[in-house]
Amino acid sequence: MSARSQAILTPMTQLDPSTTQPFPQSQKIYVTGSRPDIRVPMRQITLTDANINPAIVVYDPSGVYTDPQVNIDVCQGLPKIRQAWIAERNDTEVLSTVSSDYGQFRRADPQLQALRFRGNHQPRRAKVGHNVTQMHYARRGMITPEMEFIAIRENQRLNEIRDPQLLNQHRGEAFGAAIPKEITPEWVRDEVARGRAIIPANINHPELEPMIIGRHFLVKINANIGNSVTTSSIAEEVEKMVWAIRWGGDTVMDLSTGKNIHETREWILRNSPVPIGTVPIYQALEKVDGRAEELTWEIFRDTLIEQAEQGVDYFTIHAGVRLAYVPLTAKRLIGIVSRGGSIMAKWCLAHHQENFLYTHFTEICEIMKAYDVAFSLGDGLRPGSIADANDAAQFAELETLGELTQIAWQHDVQVMIEGPGHVPMHLIRENMEKQLQVCQEAPFYTLGPLITDISPGYDHIASSIGAAMIGWYGCAMLCYVTPKEHLGLPNKHDVREGIIAYKIAAHAADLAKGHPGAQLRDNAISKARFEFRWEDQFNLGLDPLRAQAFHDETLPKAAAKTAHFCSMCGPQFCAMKITQDVRDYAQQKGIQDLNQAVETGLKEKSAEFNTQGGKIYQPTKINT
Amino acid sequence: MSARSQAILTPMTQLDPSTTQPFPQSQKIYVTGSRPDIRVPMRQITLTDANINPAIVVYDPSGVYTDPQVNIDVCQGLPKIRQAWIAERNDTEVLSTVSSDYGQFRRADPQLQALRFRGNHQPRRAKVGHNVTQMHYARRGMITPEMEFIAIRENQRLNEIRDPQLLNQHRGEAFGAAIPKEITPEWVRDEVARGRAIIPANINHPELEPMIIGRHFLVKINANIGNSVTTSSIAEEVEKMVWAIRWGGDTVMDLSTGKNIHETREWILRNSPVPIGTVPIYQALEKVDGRAEELTWEIFRDTLIEQAEQGVDYFTIHAGVRLAYVPLTAKRLIGIVSRGGSIMAKWCLAHHQENFLYTHFTEICEIMKAYDVAFSLGDGLRPGSIADANDAAQFAELETLGELTQIAWQHDVQVMIEGPGHVPMHLIRENMEKQLQVCQEAPFYTLGPLITDISPGYDHIASSIGAAMIGWYGCAMLCYVTPKEHLGLPNKHDVREGIIAYKIAAHAADLAKGHPGAQLRDNAISKARFEFRWEDQFNLGLDPLRAQAFHDETLPKAAAKTAHFCSMCGPQFCAMKITQDVRDYAQQKGIQDLNQAVETGLKEKSAEFNTQGGKIYQPTKINT
Repeated sequence: MSARSQAILTPMTQLDPSTTQPFPQSQKIYVTGSRPDIRVPMRQITLTDANINPAIVVYDPSGVYTDPQVNIDVCQGLPKIRQAWIAERNDTEVLSTVSSDYGQFRRADPQLQALRFRGNHQPRRAKVGHNVTQMHYARRGMITPEMEFIAIRENQRLNEIRDPQLLNQHRGEAFGAAIPKEITPEWVRDEVARGRAIIPANINHPELEPMIIGRHFLVKINANIGNSVTTSSIAEEVEKMVWAIRWGGDTVMDLSTGKNIHETREWILRNSPVPIGTVPIYQALEKVDGRAEELTWEIFRDTLIEQAEQGVDYFTIHAGVRLAYVPLTAKRLIGIVSRGGSIMAKWCLAHHQENFLYTHFTEICEIMKAYDVAFSLGDGLRPGSIADANDAAQFAELETLGELTQIAWQHDVQVMIEGPGHVPMHLIRENMEKQLQVCQEAPFYTLGPLITDISPGYDHIASSIGAAMIGWYGCAMLCYVTPKEHLGLPNKHDVREGIIAYKIAAHAADLAKGHPGAQLRDNAISKARFEFRWEDQFNLGLDPLRAQAFHDETLPKAAAKTAHFCSMCGPQFCAMKITQDVRDYAQQKGIQDLNQAVETGLKEKSAEFNTQGGKIYQPTKINT
Repeated sequence: MSARSQAILTPMTQLDPSTTQPFPQSQKIYVTGSRPDIRVPMRQITLTDANINPAIVVYDPSGVYTDPQVNIDVCQGLPKIRQAWIAERNDTEVLSTVSSDYGQFRRADPQLQALRFRGNHQPRRAKVGHNVTQMHYARRGMITPEMEFIAIRENQRLNEIRDPQLLNQHRGEAFGAAIPKEITPEWVRDEVARGRAIIPANINHPELEPMIIGRHFLVKINANIGNSVTTSSIAEEVEKMVWAIRWGGDTVMDLSTGKNIHETREWILRNSPVPIGTVPIYQALEKVDGRAEELTWEIFRDTLIEQAEQGVDYFTIHAGVRLAYVPLTAKRLIGIVSRGGSIMAKWCLAHHQENFLYTHFTEICEIMKAYDVAFSLGDGLRPGSIADANDAAQFAELETLGELTQIAWQHDVQVMIEGPGHVPMHLIRENMEKQLQVCQEAPFYTLGPLITDISPGYDHIASSIGAAMIGWYGCAMLCYVTPKEHLGLPNKHDVREGIIAYKIAAHAADLAKGHPGAQLRDNAISKARFEFRWEDQFNLGLDPLRAQAFHDETLPKAAAKTAHFCSMCGPQFCAMKITQDVRDYAQQKGIQDLNQAVETGLKEKSAEFNTQGGKIYQPTKINT
């Protein structure tokens, strides 16, 4: 074993404790469904004075990594919680070996022994003539354990909250989205059947804790990881994946382009409780040494099968980059910025032929449905600058994606649609509306969008603005952007920054849409803030550790954590303390009296206004 | 001199070089107006291959601090560029001493000698019977040098750009705002006369580089600084002010509440090229040892005069917190969160009397017009949580602010209106629309708003989302929020983060409104990105140093700064490189041919669609 391999493997057996340590006062709980093997994980945050302040339950994609009860062994991978569900459907078969040429080639290479995942993974495929997608089941009226799992998960035990002050929330503006008060398994099934939501859940990813992407559910976020030629080892990538879900990544895309990506992917999948997405053309390109023109359908097809049998849950496929659209980008300020899009554009031009992903789309569907891989139809022609937003190339491709959605749906293959990119605020809504219309409400999944080009180093902020807005308008999943966008590869710090920015955007979208229970956590944290329950304020936040550390910077003493004043103003001069006085006063006087006083006051004002002839403009009115 | 005073003074004579160093390839230029003493500063960014890539000029509030030609002596203060303009209007008189009791008291205290600003500042006041506000001049048809300065400044030499690709921009959606193609001095005058824009420019702040706040101008941002009981020295506050304008703060509010705030303010004003705002009630409260109920009109009045003669450009005055509205907050989740608002609420309740700021509003106007201090009518009842957004208390106060605006305008006193706070995305627009209507288009100036409560440690992000949106809807100035909001006092790092987040928001708003020339910088940076001009990309960004540092992390070598590949994907596998190939190909084939090919392609597609009976759903269409 080379020193390099050694270096790659050693850290894999142990994740950094900072990656797995539960948040303060947070506890993993499991809500059991109709059968004992449906155990839905959630994170419960215990507050001070638990008898007065009920614990708050939040959505938790972090997997068993944050459950101290579970022994983590990344060499063995996660427990295969879906295995029985998949097996009992009796429509798949375990393969004696992997089907792809490349998979076999990697298996046969003794040099790779040290790199290979050591645990057990036996690939499955649909039996001949079977379709194993969640959409297929849904359309046949079947509620799968995955669907029930999701229904429980989306509700976040909301029905157990009794405090009306916590439940109180604004009505929201959902732009035609019809979000039910409670998510039922039947609703999940129906949404998947209609194509309005997807459950990315490859039958070869039994470790998955099922989740759903659709605009009638909580808005989700995706985090990208991936090594490149220049940096990163397998261990780093696994660590990054666990780190990403710790902070709230709902899905993770592995965009690796370096060497050993086959083995890296295996390690990631076997240890991932969230759906993993990939862009198979990246790996296909590696197989032809980066020469786009040498790509063939056969190489691509083999790559799809290779990855599908590893368990990838969704594939980005740039089938909408049609030959005829490529010249539309030539006049752009910044051309094609999607890697996948540019690869296919180059291929199209080199051969002067139609994109082979487009011409072979039905065959791709056949593969997708044999494993239940969902399409993430790539926006290869997305705008890479404000100038290029909403142009002919972008919308021409979108039309094609709508057309391809219909074809995928004929095969009961799940589809989401990727979207931009760089779009000024006033052009965002057009993107969402057009996508809903053209793609028949298939879930939209956008990268940002960034609402300006001038913020390198802060593009997580520029893009979270666009992400929040498009999430509000109806986008189902937001692909994060880190501060390193346009500049370099994100490290752990950048991943955390990017994810929190996107958790803010996604949550803001839920709030603005009026998603049931979305305001609960806001109400709880604001109540804690008002009552000077500092620790509760930290722990209810999206990043408890950061909040605590920032407070410590100004007032490091432990006593300050229970002090009845803010760290901003000091002990005597605090707005919230004064408000408490106001409230005490109001209580003391009786709020009813005060309400009456207000009414009387307003009446007086109104009377005064009227006697003065109803003019708004009263020059000497208060000159007393 | 005590050791403490020594410590306070020593660093004042020299600012940290990191605070004043010009950005790479940036140069301070001055555009001269109709008279030689109108010299409008701008920042010119020189790009590589200057003959092909014209230098880009950007708005620059950083003052002479970033001009290496100018010797900075903070003990003497900045050059008094407005002094002649003020004097020649011949409507003010130089006072032999300060008029306020408190000002005289501080002057008489020998203990304070070491703390006092050493430079020259002779307070002025309007001659009896005169009104010296920019609004007063504007309404009399007078174009002041301040107005001309602003017109030149707002245009950013846009008329000198020739490259149509750089000038190209989206049309924008301005929600009824009528932004002219070019800002003329007459337009500035007219907007100020109508009250739709303000020029905060106290006659006692001759060091000011005039700027304007209004929705028909570039969106501005404010940065708060201020010590408190627990931390900070005078030197730190001056340094923070210079730091804040370096990153793009258009105005700075001094929210100090600790000791020596009188002297701190003097140092800040004498060294500030941007308008300084304060909340005088904070200092008034200090004068009564923090006991709100002991506040009196006389103490407050003396404070206004004290600060007006120092040169404060705008005062936040919470005159809309009427007695009758206070009980409306008692049922809120989080009550009153504005410090000023809560002080006044407490006073109202303690005395069961109407807010003395409201009852003495005309007398306040008399003071404002004698110095040209602008009102920033405070939103003392702004919501401090999502739950409390857009409630009765908030909007009742807004109505009163509209009423007070009319009164101020009768006195030709300039007014802007402060706004929230915490507001979910879907309720933001109502704030803007109501404000425009109720306050007759007086400029709106909001704190964020934060679009969720759950992001302590990242509230600069949560609030920049709301800020960008409300800026787009018509808000004229955005008060920044730092990552320390709700947790502690911001340090220099936090100030930088907060300002950049808000520069993003303000610029995004300009872009979305279609402000003339707003897209120029985006176009230039995207072009640089596309052409792998790395240094240009960094230097055109909002934070060139951060961008450069981030790029260095992945590819530290100097050669990489001219490399024709991204730091993300490595040399061979780069979308933008492929795009260049596509473009070369397109050029080689002749774009015209390609456009024709597209047209033919689309025609074929359309014909095919029609022969198939116009069905969208074509199952076997591409199965070839």
